[in-house]
Amino acid sequence: MRPVPPSPQRQHSTRLNRFIEDNKGRFVTHLSEMVAIPTVSADPPYPSVFTKMAEYTQNLFQTSGGTAEIIPTHGNPIVVGLFHTGRNRPTITVYNHLDVQPATEPAWVSDPFTLRIAKNRYFGRGTTDDKGPALTAFLAASFAAQEGVPVNIRFIWEMEEEIGSRNFESFVKTKRADLKSDGIVVSDTVWISARQPVISTGLRGLLCVILRLRTGKEDRHSGLTGGAARNAISELCEAVCRLHHPRTGDVLIPGFYEKVRPPTKEELADFEQCGFSVLRFKRDHKFHSLRSGTRLDLMRRIWAEPTFELHGIVGGHSGPGVKTIVPQSAEAKISMRLVPHQDPDEIFDLLKKYLRSIHPGIEIEKNAKLLPFEGVTSGPLMEMVSKAMEEGFGRIPVRVREGGSIGALPILQKYLKTNAAAVPVTFLGLSLPEHGYHAPNEHFDWQQTAGGIKAFVRFFREAAIRNWVKK
Amino acid sequence: MRPVPPSPQRQHSTRLNRFIEDNKGRFVTHLSEMVAIPTVSADPPYPSVFTKMAEYTQNLFQTSGGTAEIIPTHGNPIVVGLFHTGRNRPTITVYNHLDVQPATEPAWVSDPFTLRIAKNRYFGRGTTDDKGPALTAFLAASFAAQEGVPVNIRFIWEMEEEIGSRNFESFVKTKRADLKSDGIVVSDTVWISARQPVISTGLRGLLCVILRLRTGKEDRHSGLTGGAARNAISELCEAVCRLHHPRTGDVLIPGFYEKVRPPTKEELADFEQCGFSVLRFKRDHKFHSLRSGTRLDLMRRIWAEPTFELHGIVGGHSGPGVKTIVPQSAEAKISMRLVPHQDPDEIFDLLKKYLRSIHPGIEIEKNAKLLPFEGVTSGPLMEMVSKAMEEGFGRIPVRVREGGSIGALPILQKYLKTNAAAVPVTFLGLSLPEHGYHAPNEHFDWQQTAGGIKAFVRFFREAAIRNWVKK
Repeated sequence: MRPVPPSPQRQHSTRLNRFIEDNKGRFVTHLSEMVAIPTVSADPPYPSVFTKMAEYTQNLFQTSGGTAEIIPTHGNPIVVGLFHTGRNRPTITVYNHLDVQPATEPAWVSDPFTLRIAKNRYFGRGTTDDKGPALTAFLAASFAAQEGVPVNIRFIWEMEEEIGSRNFESFVKTKRADLKSDGIVVSDTVWISARQPVISTGLRGLLCVILRLRTGKEDRHSGLTGGAARNAISELCEAVCRLHHPRTGDVLIPGFYEKVRPPTKEELADFEQCGFSVLRFKRDHKFHSLRSGTRLDLMRRIWAEPTFELHGIVGGHSGPGVKTIVPQSAEAKISMRLVPHQDPDEIFDLLKKYLRSIHPGIEIEKNAKLLPFEGVTSGPLMEMVSKAMEEGFGRIPVRVREGGSIGALPILQKYLKTNAAAVPVTFLGLSLPEHGYHAPNEHFDWQQTAGGIKAFVRFFREAAIRNWVKK
Repeated sequence: MRPVPPSPQRQHSTRLNRFIEDNKGRFVTHLSEMVAIPTVSADPPYPSVFTKMAEYTQNLFQTSGGTAEIIPTHGNPIVVGLFHTGRNRPTITVYNHLDVQPATEPAWVSDPFTLRIAKNRYFGRGTTDDKGPALTAFLAASFAAQEGVPVNIRFIWEMEEEIGSRNFESFVKTKRADLKSDGIVVSDTVWISARQPVISTGLRGLLCVILRLRTGKEDRHSGLTGGAARNAISELCEAVCRLHHPRTGDVLIPGFYEKVRPPTKEELADFEQCGFSVLRFKRDHKFHSLRSGTRLDLMRRIWAEPTFELHGIVGGHSGPGVKTIVPQSAEAKISMRLVPHQDPDEIFDLLKKYLRSIHPGIEIEKNAKLLPFEGVTSGPLMEMVSKAMEEGFGRIPVRVREGGSIGALPILQKYLKTNAAAVPVTFLGLSLPEHGYHAPNEHFDWQQTAGGIKAFVRFFREAAIRNWVKK
């Protein structure tokens, strides 16, 4: 009896498993080299760091059967990579960003820009946000192209995501014709837990402001002038405490909540079923305690409600010990997460007006803004990504909102249309809460990489098979 | 007719003027070398910096006809220098400190530890506080010794003044027998203006505390956790705003003012006549505005009332731009200037108790404490220093209190007794408000040096002539 040859599906599966196994070393090498390029967009260590990254990733595409173009902007360049398999095939655009958060926290146990590998975990700034997921999607696309999956896969790798994607709109406007897509998939979101993948249906927006107060030209001796001199830090702290309630988080700016719509019954039902656990949330993020103990209230707080966050106060003395000066200038770094229907510009005006009534001496700078985002909640793209995640990780993802912000998405949604309809945008996130987005000792891991490659390959195959695009 | 030979007084005066002229270069060289040893006691750049300074100054005495001993302590060493002219002569002890404040302010226009000379002004950390005045007194003493003025002059040069003189008491206790003095003069205070020398009659005390709050293990992403996560910086700001009123400076800790005695009528009369000018105070310290516009109220605030000062808040993100994390740990650096009869330990207990009622999660550390100090207001020492200042600067000094703190003084007063009476302590300060105690671009100048040498020489001569010591 001659053995039955394995099915094409089975053969594909075997090849994919071998590809993943064979490419582990390659993944680690690339991730290590990309982490070593410290693309801190808020505070780059040298100006050419972004060019270096752009050239590195362009080379990545060019040596893997793809092509890539470096698009200059008024800020950092954007890399557009492409695996083109043929005309009249659906085109999927994958969005990632390759800039990273600063990594100055003393809690880092190893150099943030030297990849440290421990038990299949990869530590370094940007590993999970968003270089690791970018590389994962890239490897999946190179495999799909190699397999001849009939889909075109484009990558947009931005390097200003962490500073508000300020030049993204002009890039999309200019390149609009070259960027036509039938679907956009974003890989820059976080699961509820290591056991519960999610598909995000919306994102919060963001308004970053800096408040500044100067009461004199320079800090002075508190013995010689203390009592008479104004204290810029104290006065700024007071103002910030009048803008929001530090314990509850309630925002005290008149009109701030006016346009906020509470989650619908359907959304709340999704929240209830999503598997969010208060204990796990606390553990994953290493919190000692939270502002609320109620499960639904916590989900509402992180996904569906706006926030006011004080990130840091600059001024006076922050070195070791106590330096007895009266600080004469102070700066408060603040951001507000905004929910759909809140407009960052309107909120800025409300804040500015209220601040003037509290303390007219404080100056305010609009540092960055991102619109809130509402993604698809149903339709073919949602089904494709759901299948993909199930294949990659053996679990059906749940639909929830995401508390973070990705400035590029409302822009992509606005400009990239197919037949006058907005291009659908969905999310295939690979990061886990414990990976530490924006935190010290940020890491990614091999399990999410391997599962992520499988999920993305399935997503690309679904796109090719379904051919959902209305011509 | 033969010319009348000049009087011995006139000859002394001529020699002194020549000495001052001849020693300008030497002064600058020594000051430059001492500034280049960065004796930042709160944050030394390397451990041996204090030993280096001790050896440098020991050599200074030994090559100028004096002797010097380096006394080790549990912290930084103390240098005791001596110009001994004979037994049964009065002994004056001059107190200075050679440690300096940190110099991390971005406003420095040149390296703080490289002396920059511009128009007879000497810029660098420690130039006016207190290396310049120390060197001035030293040069005067070396001249007096060279002239054979019958007085013994001892110097105590401490290197922990800026961190609360924590090892000074054990030094004085141990060396008590060798430190016997008939009068102590301190050169570490500031005039009211460049035209108005002062003699301080009291100092404020100091209590430095650090408040710490930790709400989680590490800072987390404000998109993923914002709304649910507590914000350690905001909560700490709120607590600080409940401990004092940021605009008026009023301290809100129950019992804080209980032991404060208002200035006497005589003191207020001295204040009124001292030549303090609101405009000049603002200009000298480069303030845009002050907490009060009333002259007497301002003097009361800086000399006779306690304060609560927030020096800086550590935590979260203080680099460029806005980093959207929820800070999970925060530290507030605080000090309180205390007036005579307030006890730092009692105040600490009041603060701790009240803080517990406001926010039990906040931890408090007593970082440093200095007792308030009441100096002599009349008597031979006061007359001597008055004469000395008049000789040095051509102006009669006024008696006022000083808002700063010098931890060593209550200790010297406590342990160094003559015939069971406390040794009298007075002040011969040389610094000007515009020199910038603890401020960026701190400087000293040649005019204060030259006048200071004259004043100190006169002081030493007065001590020899008056021989006021009761045997």
